[in-house]
Parts: sequence; C-alpha cells; structure tokens
Amino acid sequence: MTKDRLYLFDTTLRDGAQTSGVDFSVNEKIVIAELLERLGVDYVEGGYPGANPADTEFFSQKRTKNAAFTAFGMTKRAGRSASNDPGLQQILASQSDACCFVAKAWDYHVDVALGCTNEENLEAIEDTVKAAVMAGKEAMIDCEHFFDGYKANPDYALACARTAYQAGARWVVLCDTNGGTLPDEIHSIVTKVQEIVPGSHLGIHTHDDTGHAVANSLAAVDAGVRQVQGTLNGLGERCGNANLITLIPTLKLKSQFADRLEIGVSEDQLQDITGISHAFDEILNRSPNRHAPYVGETAFATKAGIHASAILKDPQTYEHVAPETVGNQRRVLVSDQAGKSNLLGELARVGITVDKADPRLDRLLSKVKEREALGYAYEAADASFELLALRELGEVPDFFQVDSFKVMVERRFNAIGDLITVSEAVVKVNVDGETRMSVAEGNGPVNALDMALRKDLGKYQAAIEGLELIDYKVRILNGGTDAVTRVLIESHDARTQRRWFTIGVSSNIVDASFQALVDSITFALLKAQES
Amino acid sequence: MTKDRLYLFDTTLRDGAQTSGVDFSVNEKIVIAELLERLGVDYVEGGYPGANPADTEFFSQKRTKNAAFTAFGMTKRAGRSASNDPGLQQILASQSDACCFVAKAWDYHVDVALGCTNEENLEAIEDTVKAAVMAGKEAMIDCEHFFDGYKANPDYALACARTAYQAGARWVVLCDTNGGTLPDEIHSIVTKVQEIVPGSHLGIHTHDDTGHAVANSLAAVDAGVRQVQGTLNGLGERCGNANLITLIPTLKLKSQFADRLEIGVSEDQLQDITGISHAFDEILNRSPNRHAPYVGETAFATKAGIHASAILKDPQTYEHVAPETVGNQRRVLVSDQAGKSNLLGELARVGITVDKADPRLDRLLSKVKEREALGYAYEAADASFELLALRELGEVPDFFQVDSFKVMVERRFNAIGDLITVSEAVVKVNVDGETRMSVAEGNGPVNALDMALRKDLGKYQAAIEGLELIDYKVRILNGGTDAVTRVLIESHDARTQRRWFTIGVSSNIVDASFQALVDSITFALLKAQES
Repeated sequence: MTKDRLYLFDTTLRDGAQTSGVDFSVNEKIVIAELLERLGVDYVEGGYPGANPADTEFFSQKRTKNAAFTAFGMTKRAGRSASNDPGLQQILASQSDACCFVAKAWDYHVDVALGCTNEENLEAIEDTVKAAVMAGKEAMIDCEHFFDGYKANPDYALACARTAYQAGARWVVLCDTNGGTLPDEIHSIVTKVQEIVPGSHLGIHTHDDTGHAVANSLAAVDAGVRQVQGTLNGLGERCGNANLITLIPTLKLKSQFADRLEIGVSEDQLQDITGISHAFDEILNRSPNRHAPYVGETAFATKAGIHASAILKDPQTYEHVAPETVGNQRRVLVSDQAGKSNLLGELARVGITVDKADPRLDRLLSKVKEREALGYAYEAADASFELLALRELGEVPDFFQVDSFKVMVERRFNAIGDLITVSEAVVKVNVDGETRMSVAEGNGPVNALDMALRKDLGKYQAAIEGLELIDYKVRILNGGTDAVTRVLIESHDARTQRRWFTIGVSSNIVDASFQALVDSITFALLKAQES
Repeated sequence: MTKDRLYLFDTTLRDGAQTSGVDFSVNEKIVIAELLERLGVDYVEGGYPGANPADTEFFSQKRTKNAAFTAFGMTKRAGRSASNDPGLQQILASQSDACCFVAKAWDYHVDVALGCTNEENLEAIEDTVKAAVMAGKEAMIDCEHFFDGYKANPDYALACARTAYQAGARWVVLCDTNGGTLPDEIHSIVTKVQEIVPGSHLGIHTHDDTGHAVANSLAAVDAGVRQVQGTLNGLGERCGNANLITLIPTLKLKSQFADRLEIGVSEDQLQDITGISHAFDEILNRSPNRHAPYVGETAFATKAGIHASAILKDPQTYEHVAPETVGNQRRVLVSDQAGKSNLLGELARVGITVDKADPRLDRLLSKVKEREALGYAYEAADASFELLALRELGEVPDFFQVDSFKVMVERRFNAIGDLITVSEAVVKVNVDGETRMSVAEGNGPVNALDMALRKDLGKYQAAIEGLELIDYKVRILNGGTDAVTRVLIESHDARTQRRWFTIGVSSNIVDASFQALVDSITFALLKAQES
C-alpha cells in the first residue's frame, strides 16, 4: 500500500517568536534552522522579511539546504496593486523558496481589523498568490481565524480557501488562531473544506489554549490534511503552538498514522529528537520540561511502587513506545547498555569512532554520567563533549595551563563625579613551562577574563586570532542558596567560519564561565592543529 | 433539556504522588484536600491506607466535607478470602466514604505481575467489590491497562469490567495506564464497553504520554463515560495525568460539553481556578507554567505585532473564552509598540490608577519606550515595571542609596595546594544620611553582592528578613563585543508568600545584577510599607 506524504511545516522562527520573552537574534535563527534541518522538517518558516531588521537580514541569503526556506508576510493591501505594495515586494524579493501569506478568513475581522470589503480581501488573496507564483515562489495562504470564521460565516471562510487554491496556492492552511476549537469540530470542518480544496493541498495550524493543539492537528490529519504546522517544544504565543516534538513520534510510531502516512523524518532523525528538543531549550535558556511526552527526562521514568516486580520482569509492557526510538532512556533500571549505545551515537555524531568493546568507553560513560549529575548538559555543548571524549581517549594535548586568575568589578564615582563600573582581570598562564601574566579590562567580568586569557598564549597566539565569543548564556540550576550555575558559550572562528558551543558548571558564575572559555580556546587550538 | 451529571474524581494525592520528586506530608495532603474542595471536585482520592505511615494517618479521620473521601488499594490477593486479606481490611477500616481498587484488566499482566489465573483475578474483583459494599463503602474498580488489555484480549478486558459492575461497583474506571492510546481508539473502545456497562457507571483515567490526556478524557466523555479522573495541574508519573485544571474550564465553557453535561463546579468556583492552580504550585514549590491553558500567566497575553489595532478595538475576538471566567487576566504585552491604552491596562493590572489625561502618563510612556530600546523587557518584570511607574508618579521613597560597591573573584591555590575560587563583595550603603559598609562572601560575585547589600539596611532590616532570591536568569542581547546583558531576578518573601520579578540591563553583568537586586529590595520595602 502506498502511503500518503505528510509535510511538516515549522514556524518556530515566526509564530514561535511571538512568545512573550522570546526575541531571536539572526545568529540564533541560523542555529535553530540547523536544528530544524537535523530534525527533518519540510518547511522552515524563518520570519517576516521587512518587519524588523533581524528578519530582513536573515532572509538576505538562503538559510536551509533541504527544507523549503519560507518567508511569512501579509497579503497585499486593499486599494493598491501587488506590484505597488512595497511590503509584499520585499517578501517576494527575499531569498526564500516559499512564501506563506496570512489572510483573514473571518468576515468580522476583514471588517474590523482590515477595514476593507469582503470582496477586496478575496482579491488580495488572489493577486498575492498570483504574484508569488509569478516570482517563482511556492505560494501558501494561512487562513487566519478559519474555524471561528467558518462557524460565523461558512460561505465566506470557504470562499477564502477556494480563492487561494484556484489562484495557484500550493497550500491552503486552516488556522485555529484563537486556539479554542475542539477536535471533533476540527474534524468535521476539515471534512467539509475538502469539498472545495483537496486534502493534499490543505494544512492545519493550531494553538494549545484548551490543551488540544496536538489532538487538533491529528484530527485534521485524520480528516485528510497533508501539511501540519507547529513549533519546537510547542513554543508560541499564549499557550503555544502545536508541538512538533510531540507530533512527530506519534506520526512515526503509532500505527493509526504510520501505516497510512509517510513523513520526511527518518528513524535516525527520530532518535535524535530528544537531543534536538533539549538543545532548543538551551538556546532559549530555559529548563527542558521534564514531563514532556516522548522527550522529557521523566517520560519513561517509573517510580517503582506497586509495579516494581512486573517492570523488572518486562519493562516494555509498561511503555507505550520504546524509549530508544526517540533517543530517550528508561529510568527504572540503570541500563548501562542503553547508555553505551546512546554514547556511541553521540560520538559518531561529532566524528569519533570507537570500538564498542573498548574499555575506555566505560570510563567515558561513567565520566559523562558523573558530570551530567553535576549539571553539565553535553547535548547543548558539542565542543566540550568532544574535548571530554578525546581527553578520555588520550588525544588532547595540554596546550596551556591557567595557574590563577583574579577578576575585579568596581562601581564608584570617577574623578569628574560620574558613577562608573569598571572590570579588570589578571590571568597567569603557563605555556611550555613559561609563565605569562596578562591583564585586561572588559565591559564585564567575563569579558575582562576572556580578554586577559586570550591576550598572550605565546606560540598559540596566531591560532586564536579569528576567535570570537558570539553568545553567552547563563542558567541557574537549583535556585536558592545551593544554586549551581551553568554557562554556555558560543564561539566562532572568523577564519574557518566554524562555530562551536562549550559549557562550564560551578557554584560560581565566573568559575563556570572560565571553564567554558578555556574549553573554547582549547577546542580552537585542537582544530587548528588538525587542519 | 436535562443535563447528565458528570463526576470529577481527583487523584492528585494518590496517582499524582507517583511523580518523581513529589512526596506529600500529611499536612500538605490536608491543605491540598482543602484546595480540591474549593475547586468543587466530587471525589478526593487521598492515598493508599496501609501502604505508608503518612497515608495511614491521613485516613485515620475523614478529611473532606463535600467530596467523597476515597481510599485507594488493590483487590484481594488470590488464594485467600477478602476477610482474610489484611491489606484489604485496612482499606475498608479507613475513614473513607469510597474505595477505589486497582485490578488488572490485561491478561498478560495477570499472568506476569500477579502470577494468578485469569479466573482468580475475576474472583478477586468480585469478592473485593462485594466486601466494600458490605462495609458500607461506595465501591470502584480501576481497570488497569484496560485499553492495551482490550487490544490484546477484548473478551478478558470486558469480563473484568462486567464482573466489577455486576458485583455492585458504582464505577468501573477504564485506565490508559501506559498513556499510549489515541482519542479515536478511546472513543471506539468506550463505545464497545457500553454494551456491557452503562456509561453512567463508567469512568476514564488517562496519562499524557502522547500529549492526549485531556483529549482522551473528553473523547471518553463524548462516547458516554460519566466520571473523569485527573489531577491538579496534570501532576503525575512520567508525563503526568489528565489535567483537571484544563478539563474543567472546557467542560464548563465549551457548548459541546456545557449544553449536555453538568459538573459540580459552579461559576464562582471556576473563577477561582487560576488561583487554585497557582496555590497548588506554591505547595509543590515550583513556578507555575506560564503557558498553561486557561490559567497560565500568558494564556491571554498577546504581543501586539500585526494584531495591535484590532485587539484594541475588540479584544474578545482574539480570545476563545473571556479570561475573567477562569479568574485570569488579559495582558497586551508592554512592548516597543506600547501605546497609551496598553500602558493604562498594564498599570491597572498592577493596581495603579491614573487618569488618561494625566501628563505624567506621557512621560512614563516615553520612559518605558526609552528603556525598552536599551534592552529592558518589562513584560517579564512586573515589579520593576511597577517601581518605574510609581517613581514617575513620585510615589517611591528613597529607602537607601548605594554609594559604591566592589566585587572580587579570585581563583588560586590555597595553603594546602587546592585550587579554589573565592568571591567577596564590599558595599557602601547610605540609609538616612548614615553610611554603612558591609562585606560578604558568596558562592559567586552576584551572590556575594546580594549578601553584602542585604547585610545591613539599618531600620529596614526587619522588612527584608524573609526575602530570598529564588531564580536568576541572564541573557546577552546583542552578542559580540557590544553585548548588553539583561538580568532577570525572581524573588520570594517567605512571610507574605509574594513572588516578584525584577530586571537590570547593562553592558556589565554585575552591574545589571546590581540593578535587579536593588529593585527587588526596594519592591520588598515598598510592599512592607503598604501592608
């Protein structure tokens, strides 16, 4: 039996960016787009070119290899032609493969929010789709408020969908913008829409305001739509969007869907999904949800209780899917076997091959576990993980040692009576048995320490010329007085265009930063040596 | 039209207590039972008398006024009579109104976990129900693994349900123990079960392993069950149980359910649900989920963006239910698009009323915009926003001034040759014209600064006794060398149970932290003065 292809459309970088407190930089967008390609989604909606400088810059070049790079925008304004609408033209001129235009599908909103006639809105849909197709883009229309609009005026909502489809839109996306629709309504309305637009051209976009974003997406798929929109970890305004990290395993592993539908995520990619979910949380600088379906730390954890003996006899009968299929782990039994194969996978991912029987692998495994118990999160810090592994395998030279450092931050009045804050760091480094002392000022203690550390590494100085610290994240792990600080540093080498992440953990933020800085420099030196 | 009564069964204190890291004391159980009665559930399952001392003590007296106080236990063991099973007798002897017994409904588990015959298991169900009814208890059977069992051996699963019902069980509860069943399967299996047991005697118990606990519960209700089991905030093993805090508003407010069904939660109780949800998180000592459906802090928050003008014209068309119905609030986020009416709304929310024509409002608006351009994000820092507004209105006393501070972090070898990192801060504070100098060590520069700042505030010292810093977040805004650091601090006052967020922005992380710390202390003093 041939399976239908179901397409995954990620809108983390666009609708996800509507989340309060979330504000992606261009760099973060680049890293997240890479994560999305690792996951295997079909469309990456990157933002709204022209709406703000970051999105415009992000769309100044194509940012995906496999996924269709998609720009978001509004349909043309009423009262002017598509060619005469600068906002629309900016979207069409962006380096995108596809364009997704939001259009009102609820007549009430056409009147109140757009202030134009229903007919003008349909014209805007038609002209915009045609202009996008003319410009060589794959065209999509997001029918905003589709389900509420359908309930208020089904004819007009359907007219919007029909107009988009007939004008040549590859996808007509039905949006439950306010998030209040329930699964059976979604199912019956989607069924009706297919009298007008075939399911192979319909998408679904849901929000979690009643806790049904995932259920609504699957109800629509069950009814026939073949594109699902969502975000990493359900990021999104209010209660969030449909969570692709929850949807993908269900689509891949549950026979009701897997027997009928094919998605672009391979089994290997599915095994990477727990890591991808956690890496995304690191970028957001927030703790992963321990209880998240499939990927949460406790998703396969059972408090022994009354089930203990049965779980010991046959753990699978207490699990709805096998944790390894999604790269997660069972946490009843400490399964070194599972740990070991995960570790081999991680090593392969950073390009290290080790024999399964190598005894150093057991040492590395216990080292990783020990350090993760302290708060290290290696899934977010590839370079620190690679260094840890290579050290255990005896393959990292001692380029330099830091004998001591001292960092000072002072806020005081200066000679002319202004309140100023100054930071200064002194570092004593040993290179080839020779001690070098450096001092530097910075715009903060970590910056000062970074400057001082990199000021004089003797014969290695040339190898770190292009090194720059481009992002720095801090997370407090326990809270309260026993708090442990985790620092994540993103570095970039201007010469090789390589980018890497390092990590440090300590009760002292400066100490944690120091560890991550030293790892970053060591990694740069290691890569310079290899090349 | 008469509505069917739908019963709500809360298992926070029993199945919720299976959550890793959760371990309720008797006192906490008492407080939570009160919360549950405030909410209006019909059954409070309090635990498993005899399984541990806390549960036994909790059941030594009746703990509810209106809800049926329910004890959990296992059906009698095979090979002995009900009257000769001490575990069962302890449950029947407890001060409970109702008893809920778990029974295996999957023949595989009868064999592997219980090690008895299928027939013996049915006898255990029958004898246990009869013994409970004889003891004057309302009897229920939780059919464990019902859905997986039904898929493996429908006849046996149905035999378990039939046996319980015919023996006199008020409720036969169908449990999706492993959490892997999807809504349409739930619907069709529940429909089949009703050929044996009427829906008015059926309950549903779900878990969130595919993100469908709420959807599965409602699918079962839709198919005919009249008891729903769940927990506060979805607490529970692995990914959690069905979340009653999400289910209740949907059952009360969505016509698909509200037109057909009646629940024991009044409109007033529904308005209390946001408060109950947050109070429960306080007991668990964790931060409420900001994105929770209905009750989350951002559940009705919109980043203005492209919707701004329409939201201002008619907010309801962007909301699936009115926030007041669940005791929550609309929040149009103060962002760089903030207009005067947004600002007035935000001021009202923190309890400040200002006349729309007050010229100080324009000054405050430009101040907010100016500071947000620097990187302040007041949507995440209510306390700093309130201070900023009150200062502009001239209503914040100068409790104290910090004349200068100095923070030092040093990593060096100590006298016995260990590498140590020490942090020390010196602060000069002026209270009522008198200078006080304090020094403190901390496990990092910010902790040292916090300790030194709070060490001696003279006459204000008593007012900050209960103050504690419970979370600290750092974000780098631009990246690179022009980086601006944003620090967000969450504080808590142990005496008032108040929690608040403050913010600081600077190119220097210590300086940004200092601002947020000073705001936090000032806010505590302001609230102490008001009370």
